[in-house]
Amino acid sequence: MIKPRTPTGVMELLPRDQIAFQRMLDTIRRIFEGFGFLPIETPVFELSEVLLTKSGGETERQVYFAQSTGTLEKAEEGLPELALRFDLTVPLARYVAEHEHALAFPFRRYQMQRVYRGERAQRGRFREFYQCDIDVIGKDALSPRHDAEIPAVIHAVFDALDIGDFTIQFNHRKLLRGWFEGQGIAGDAQLAVLREIDKLGKRGEDAVRATLAGEGFGLSSGVIDHLLAFSRVRSRGHDDALAQLDALGAGTPLFEEGRDELREVLHRLKALGVPESRYAINLSIARGLDYYTGIVYETTLDAHPGIGSICSGGRYDNLASHYTRSKLPGVGISIGLTRLFWQLREAGLVATADSSVDVLVTLFDDAGLDHALGLSQQLRAAGLNVETQLEPRKLGKQMQYADRAGIRFVVIRGDDEAARDVVAVKDLRRGEQFEVADADLARTLLVEREQWRALGQGAG
Amino acid sequence: MIKPRTPTGVMELLPRDQIAFQRMLDTIRRIFEGFGFLPIETPVFELSEVLLTKSGGETERQVYFAQSTGTLEKAEEGLPELALRFDLTVPLARYVAEHEHALAFPFRRYQMQRVYRGERAQRGRFREFYQCDIDVIGKDALSPRHDAEIPAVIHAVFDALDIGDFTIQFNHRKLLRGWFEGQGIAGDAQLAVLREIDKLGKRGEDAVRATLAGEGFGLSSGVIDHLLAFSRVRSRGHDDALAQLDALGAGTPLFEEGRDELREVLHRLKALGVPESRYAINLSIARGLDYYTGIVYETTLDAHPGIGSICSGGRYDNLASHYTRSKLPGVGISIGLTRLFWQLREAGLVATADSSVDVLVTLFDDAGLDHALGLSQQLRAAGLNVETQLEPRKLGKQMQYADRAGIRFVVIRGDDEAARDVVAVKDLRRGEQFEVADADLARTLLVEREQWRALGQGAG
Repeated sequence: MIKPRTPTGVMELLPRDQIAFQRMLDTIRRIFEGFGFLPIETPVFELSEVLLTKSGGETERQVYFAQSTGTLEKAEEGLPELALRFDLTVPLARYVAEHEHALAFPFRRYQMQRVYRGERAQRGRFREFYQCDIDVIGKDALSPRHDAEIPAVIHAVFDALDIGDFTIQFNHRKLLRGWFEGQGIAGDAQLAVLREIDKLGKRGEDAVRATLAGEGFGLSSGVIDHLLAFSRVRSRGHDDALAQLDALGAGTPLFEEGRDELREVLHRLKALGVPESRYAINLSIARGLDYYTGIVYETTLDAHPGIGSICSGGRYDNLASHYTRSKLPGVGISIGLTRLFWQLREAGLVATADSSVDVLVTLFDDAGLDHALGLSQQLRAAGLNVETQLEPRKLGKQMQYADRAGIRFVVIRGDDEAARDVVAVKDLRRGEQFEVADADLARTLLVEREQWRALGQGAG
Repeated sequence: MIKPRTPTGVMELLPRDQIAFQRMLDTIRRIFEGFGFLPIETPVFELSEVLLTKSGGETERQVYFAQSTGTLEKAEEGLPELALRFDLTVPLARYVAEHEHALAFPFRRYQMQRVYRGERAQRGRFREFYQCDIDVIGKDALSPRHDAEIPAVIHAVFDALDIGDFTIQFNHRKLLRGWFEGQGIAGDAQLAVLREIDKLGKRGEDAVRATLAGEGFGLSSGVIDHLLAFSRVRSRGHDDALAQLDALGAGTPLFEEGRDELREVLHRLKALGVPESRYAINLSIARGLDYYTGIVYETTLDAHPGIGSICSGGRYDNLASHYTRSKLPGVGISIGLTRLFWQLREAGLVATADSSVDVLVTLFDDAGLDHALGLSQQLRAAGLNVETQLEPRKLGKQMQYADRAGIRFVVIRGDDEAARDVVAVKDLRRGEQFEVADADLARTLLVEREQWRALGQGAG
């Protein structure tokens, strides 16, 4: 006998939690499609040679390799042929380069799949998790206007997910690097400083100040003051965001370019009708990844800053330089849904869902089975999800089962009801019972379900 | 520069094919949920020790193992810790055993995920493919009534997928083994004979006859005649199925038990309203897998028998004997959707889908952008999928793009239209153009879309 268990670092859910998770995936997909993003899926494994083009580091150490039994036995030299994707960005780069001539640009794709990282086992760290990504990829060039549409998508997603107030915060790499330039910090040192600024939230100002003043950086305390003052800039509302940008004073051409692009984004966000309470400028956001070159986004839940960013991304200059000579600039974001779901559950912000089953058709004796089967099929044809009780049980047991399973309607047909061609319906959500003619049952339940949804009482 | 490419044996689709595939997945899910099956998802990797409980054979040789870089470097002895699932049945067994006390039985679950097999590279063979499974798992016992609901699900799925006429064929292991018993074939020899019968379709009667007469079996030609006559039984229609079962004559108790269960299934299928042209008894179906113990199903497309079974399964006595002492009998089926989709495309039975984008909002000059953004958001709020053209281009180019992308509606707002608060809409599917007030646009397009769907013209 082997103990049934999953590896550590994966999230496996019971059905009612799976339904809640699936509804979040469905909502995200609906919004992504609403904004005209097209679906793609890529294989879970890529050729190692293709996947691991980038120069080593943390990512490469965390990669999973896949080997079939036959390959294992051969024990070949070097890396195994196949590796599991660790994000959806490298597969996207490979996909766009491989299918370049069959795609129309700007190419707007969404992708919602699991990715794999050999993380050390730790509570809240996952070795398998969903990413829900959108990216817009241009050929040769991509207007900064696309940068403004992305926060409109983020807004629509989290508005629809209904998990509390949130703020989409953004900054701009050109603004940051232009500011550093203005302080006499040039070239590679800019990226190094950027990575320190990115740690402000975790390490605090004093620690970052010490690092920037210390060996390797050696920045003067005046320069550090300027950097920290800059990083403290936060806007409140649309006009304040524009005013704060103005208040930064004149800067280098790179700085001005970044500022102009941010102004354009703010302007278009208004045209897109995104409420001004939902977005803010936050000049401490750097996003550690080297490949961002323009706007960068982070999104936080107002009441739960500790959860950190729930949706991040930004603009990059060239998606697929390892695979094609074409220049493919893009902008995109990613939602790590597994971790988000886990955190929302920990914080009590998502509840176990009601069942995906709308109706339980009960059964008291074998003679009633054919009728129960026919009635169930009628309800299904009308679009309801129906479970038929196939073996007779006491009503109390069947009612208890429906209640525990989160099934809303229980359809009951005893001898009395059968004689009158009606059924009794117990609505476990409203705690009511009513009678309805067989022929009217489907319509009645559909109307009830629609009314409940219209009241914003969830998808059940 | 590295050549962008996928490993062999995976199916990667361009967006419009991905949309077609996604619609099939959505349809299958809708039907599974309609019959009250609950969703679960399991991790792509399981502990090798847990996954590979069964005694070796083909399956084990085809398993993929996963190792992170760190583990690879350590080069441990024995099998790697993690292995990728090769079907959804073993993970289901592990899941049910692990969560037994949190689940209600009969447990009805559906699962639609990818599985992995280290197949040799070959056209039409996949190393990564979707399986769409349903199973009903009982505790201690499970009524044969559940056997009848499964073909009703199969019928609803393939009716909804609309890929041509199909026949759900079934047989019964007890009927088969009872028949063998009646011919004096006992014990393990029954399974061996069963595996030969299963090859009739591929090898033909003469070859199978030779095997059964030869060494190892040594059956008399009289017995072989009886076996082959039995295996030729096919029914046409409901009453014929019952008559053919009657015509088999009296048999052993095991045989009678199988026949009674088949009669019950036929009876309940009628109550479920499944058209009699959709199901038939086919006594040659054996399903090679040893674990089936009762009814077995195969489904074939009437016009494409060469594709083979597109949905198979059956009844088994005990799902999870490796993981729990509880007896968990069940019945289920699996659709290998990746292979099916590939074959349907090869046979020209599925077309590239129209875009998931309903509307392209065009743009002629920068001054029109804010209006285009606002209008797009209005349409999205109404439930339409909208792509906004963010950079001005010639109308011809924008129209051509929409046409190639499979987008149905193109919304045009030139100076003339702007002056009158209307937009022109080009309906690329009907080849018509009309004008509509801004305020009425969303409603008009929704009505058009609904009408098209009602005409059965696809989900676009």
